[in-house]
Parts: sequence; structure tokens; C-alpha cells
Amino acid sequence: MKTNCAWRLVARPEGPFKPQDFQWTEDPLPDLADGQVLVRQIYLSLDPTSRGWANPSATYLPPIPLGSVMRGFGLGVVEESRYPGLAPGDYVQGMLGWQTSAVSEGSALSRMERDPNIPLDAYLAVLGHIGATAYFGLLEIGQAKAGETLVVSGAAGAVGSLVGQIGKIVGCRVVGTAGSDEKCRWLTEELGFDAAINYKKEPVLSRMRRLCPAGIDVHFENVGGEVLDAALAFINTRARIVLCGLISQYNEFVPPPGPRFLGNVLIRRARLEGFVVIDYQDRFHEAFGPLATWMAEGRLKYRTDIVEGLEQAPVAVNRLFTGANIGKLLVRVSDDPGERR
Amino acid sequence: MKTNCAWRLVARPEGPFKPQDFQWTEDPLPDLADGQVLVRQIYLSLDPTSRGWANPSATYLPPIPLGSVMRGFGLGVVEESRYPGLAPGDYVQGMLGWQTSAVSEGSALSRMERDPNIPLDAYLAVLGHIGATAYFGLLEIGQAKAGETLVVSGAAGAVGSLVGQIGKIVGCRVVGTAGSDEKCRWLTEELGFDAAINYKKEPVLSRMRRLCPAGIDVHFENVGGEVLDAALAFINTRARIVLCGLISQYNEFVPPPGPRFLGNVLIRRARLEGFVVIDYQDRFHEAFGPLATWMAEGRLKYRTDIVEGLEQAPVAVNRLFTGANIGKLLVRVSDDPGERR
Repeated sequence: MKTNCAWRLVARPEGPFKPQDFQWTEDPLPDLADGQVLVRQIYLSLDPTSRGWANPSATYLPPIPLGSVMRGFGLGVVEESRYPGLAPGDYVQGMLGWQTSAVSEGSALSRMERDPNIPLDAYLAVLGHIGATAYFGLLEIGQAKAGETLVVSGAAGAVGSLVGQIGKIVGCRVVGTAGSDEKCRWLTEELGFDAAINYKKEPVLSRMRRLCPAGIDVHFENVGGEVLDAALAFINTRARIVLCGLISQYNEFVPPPGPRFLGNVLIRRARLEGFVVIDYQDRFHEAFGPLATWMAEGRLKYRTDIVEGLEQAPVAVNRLFTGANIGKLLVRVSDDPGERR
Repeated sequence: MKTNCAWRLVARPEGPFKPQDFQWTEDPLPDLADGQVLVRQIYLSLDPTSRGWANPSATYLPPIPLGSVMRGFGLGVVEESRYPGLAPGDYVQGMLGWQTSAVSEGSALSRMERDPNIPLDAYLAVLGHIGATAYFGLLEIGQAKAGETLVVSGAAGAVGSLVGQIGKIVGCRVVGTAGSDEKCRWLTEELGFDAAINYKKEPVLSRMRRLCPAGIDVHFENVGGEVLDAALAFINTRARIVLCGLISQYNEFVPPPGPRFLGNVLIRRARLEGFVVIDYQDRFHEAFGPLATWMAEGRLKYRTDIVEGLEQAPVAVNRLFTGANIGKLLVRVSDDPGERR
């Protein structure tokens, strides 16, 4: 009988995740019921939103019950199936959790058509929930259009780096904010951002004014705090603010005060809208076509920060919050059977 | 030659309007050019938004140049016309300014069909920019629907009192906030609000939770500050927050920090949208039919706070900010020729 290794959430984190909030368990895998599949996880995605899931109160998903496997999005390969839509060898994405193998309802997983020219990590970094977040967030909620000015916070993160590049592809002027010179250089020199602001050492308000001489039409917010406020200071009439993340406050027990320049949302008749990509799950396929094309054309680049081994997950997840991480943070849980090494 | 008396803005207010920010002038009226009309003002509307107009930076309108007549919306009667669409005796509304007579482009004014059964002050309190603000703000931006819970801040104000009543008419549960027990009683006993919170003496967060057991679907914000934050704490998925006013901060030089519970806008996928009624000017007529019908049916009540004489305007305008005012604040500038006293 096969064994499943898992990290279970056993305590509600106070502040950042700590190793003692998790417990490592090894349990025999149950037999499959009708409709279920057994998936061996290859890549586990670590995402900022997981911090909220660990709280005792619901976010857009119910809280993770203490003692259960930590929730997480992942990519894996089907090893056994009692679900007609999936067969052994199929690649799937879904809420596989922080574990080596997942027994899941087949209907809860998305089957991936794997293109041999696309590295497997790109399916989590671009052709999955991250790419869909950037695509729908920027183009549907943000309604970004050619000639407009787009500001992206957390621009060196998984979502932000795609948002800025898609902004360039649709013809925006794009300014990103990030927390190090290295990240800022990546944005402007590799990803084609028009400008970047290192919010940890530059005066954000005056830099934002200078770099957005025509004002801001779309602001894509991943972080919250000073950058959001500075962006609101310079929004144009009918600006759209996509509220996709507030990573700067996920570890706070009491959320910090919000932006002072909310009054500009009023006088500029702007729209600030919260956005969670799970609402677009049925439409992910609409995003993947353009995203794959742009990637193939070299117009959409990505970077992955890959941690080796599920054991590392409880420590690695904090890379998202300390600024250590650039691009998409993944845990390699097991080898890709399709990979020629 | 006729004389025009006017209050001119001669200093940028610091904090609340002060009498010395204005200068009283008496000047001869100029001759009309083609396309112009001479309007004798009957009621001048005093609105919170005027505080922003007096600042040196633009709001949704350019700043009022120092030395010019203070901007203000008003209602009057045409005395002379060189504009084909208006004749002497016609009632009009428009940006007449803080003055006894206005020379205006006829095309910039709205002609009113005066119904003899409707008191003239109702045309400013309901069948004008205030009614349109409540109507379009609640129904178009707020998308309020039967069965939903609506919270209105500044509920005893001109706009708020209409918003709450329209909310009841369309079938919402309606909770208002106001700054005195007298105002709260007016809301629940006269206007049919389901509940009211006196934010100056009740704990807003816990009262809001108790009075909105099914959460908040639409929040109509006129004030900003604590009430907005409390409302955000209890918004439902896909809630709409109509940002119509932030009167609590119009007198502040540096705006105060914004709401802490902005994170709920994200996880509830809510929409917070700024709203200025001038964008709906071409559609005011759509609102006036239903508003007049509801008023005639006794389902939409209004109250006016009428100050006698244009001389009083610079002092009276602060009634909006001190909490002294209930309902629509007007200045009676001259007599209504159609009124039988």
C-alpha cells in the first residue's frame, strides 16, 4: 500500500507562517471511490493567498480546518483513475494540497493538454491560475487599453510580472513597483516595463508622478499600503483599480489603515474592484490561447523560483512575504515523468 | 440698470469655510449677448461638494478662480432671454452661483416644467441634482435590488434620506447612519428606514453587525471614516459600494487614512465606485418621472432646511459639516413669483 506524505495545518499562524503551524504526516493512501483519481503531485504552487486560508475566518474559501492537509494549488500526473474523463499519465491541475499524492474527485481537476515545447513549470507560472489572474484581472476587470498608463505593484511577483508584460502587449505604458534594484532591473531590462520604482528606497509618490505624466488609467494592486495610495493620488477620470492582492497585510492581525487618497476614487469616478481568479475558472481556456501564443513569440517571459522537496514548503512559503522571491514560487514535489533529463 | 449682489471667493479656505473667505459685491448686470439669459435666483442650493470646489486643485470641476462668484447650483426664474429655448417666466435650474441674478448661456440651464402641486423647494430637494444623485447612485452604480441589505451613511442628509427611501421602495432592508437621535428618529419613524445608528454615541461596528444579519449588499457612502470601515467589515460577495461623498474629510488638508477593511473588497469581489451626478445630466429626466410619482404617492418624503437671504450663505454652508443640517440645505435668495402666500 502506498504512502502519502503531507503537511497538515495544526495551528492558526500568528503573523507569518511558522514551521510549528504545520505537522508532517505519512499515511496510507485510501482506495479510490467511483469518480475519484489518484494524482502524484509534481509541482506545488505557493501563493500569497494561502496565508488568508490559514486564518480562522473565511476568505473567499472556507478556512482550512485544523488537522487537515494544507490547501494548495498544484500540478501532477494521474496514477490511477476511476473517473471516466481522466486516465493514468494525464497531467492535471487543481487543489492538490501540500502532499505528495492526492485522492481527488476527477471532476475537480483540470486536465492539461501538454505541449512538449512548453516546460512543465510554465503550466503553473503562465498557463494556469497565475496566467488567468493576470489576463482576466488586467483585461476584464482592469479594461486596459492601448495608450493607457498601467501601474502594477508587486511587479516582480508571479502575477505582477505577467500583468506588466500583457500591459505592454496591449499597448500600455507600464510602470511597476518592486522591492529591490535587482527586481526593478528585471522588469525594465528583461520584461520590457517602461519604468520601475524600488519602493523600498525611492520616494514613491514623487517617482509615481514623474513616471506617469499622463496620470494612471489602470492600477493593478497586489500589495497594498504606500504604493496603492500613491497610485490613487494620480488616477485619471474613470480609472480602474484592480484589487488582486494585499500581500503587505496578510500577516497582520489587525489590518492597517487604508489609502488616504480614496477621495480621488470619488472625484475621478474611478472603480476599485476586488478580484479572485476562481470566479473565472470556467473561462481559463480563453486566456491560455493568447498566453501560450505570446509566450511562444517571446513576448511573455516568466521566471520560476523552485524549491526542492515538499519538506521545504512551510519555510519556503515565507519567501513570498519577505521579498526573497522573484517570479512564481514552486515546490518540486516529485519528478516529471515526461521530462528528459 | 439692475444690480447683482454676489459672494465672491477671495481666499482658499483652510479647514471650514470662513466669512472672510468671501467678499460681498454689488455690480451692475451686463447686457445679454446672443444665446444668454438673465435669471433671478430663487433658491440657492448649498452642497458639501462646494468645499472641494474652493480648493486650489481641481476636483471633477476646475477650481473656482479667486475673485470670481462662488459656484453653486440654484433654481430661478428667467427675466430676460436672448436664447430661443427660454422665455421670461420660465423656471430653470443650473449653476447660478452665489448671487442674486445670473447671466448664463441659455444652453447651460435646464428648463423645469413646474407642476403647481409640487412646492418649489422640492425641485431642488428631490426633482433636481439631489434626487438624480440618489436615484442613479443607488440604482445604477449600486444596483440595489429587492431583498438586499442597503446601508446609507449621512442618511439624514439631502441625498442619504432619499437613497434610504428609494432603497425601501425597491425592496431593500435599509439601515442608515446619522449623528443625532433626532435624525435617527426621523429616519425610522418618518422615512421608513428599518434601523438607524447614531454613530456619535453607538458602537458602529457591533451595531452594524447586529442590524445587518445577512451582511451588506449595497453601501451608499456620503461621509467616509468609521462608518465606511464598518460597512466594509460586513459586505457580502459582489457587494457594491457607491462612493458619493466623503464629507467627513472635505475640511481636512491632509486626508485621513482610509478604511482598514479594504481586504474585504478583495475577498468578497466587491466593487467600490466613485460617482458624480454631473455625469448623468443628460439622463436626469429618467429619474424625475419615478421620483415625482413616489413623492405624489407619499412614499418619498423630503425635508428642507431653508436659510433666509443670500447674505447668510457663507455662514450657513457650514451647517452641512457641523451636523446642524437635516435634509436639503437651501438659501432663499428671492421670492417665488408663482407662490401664493
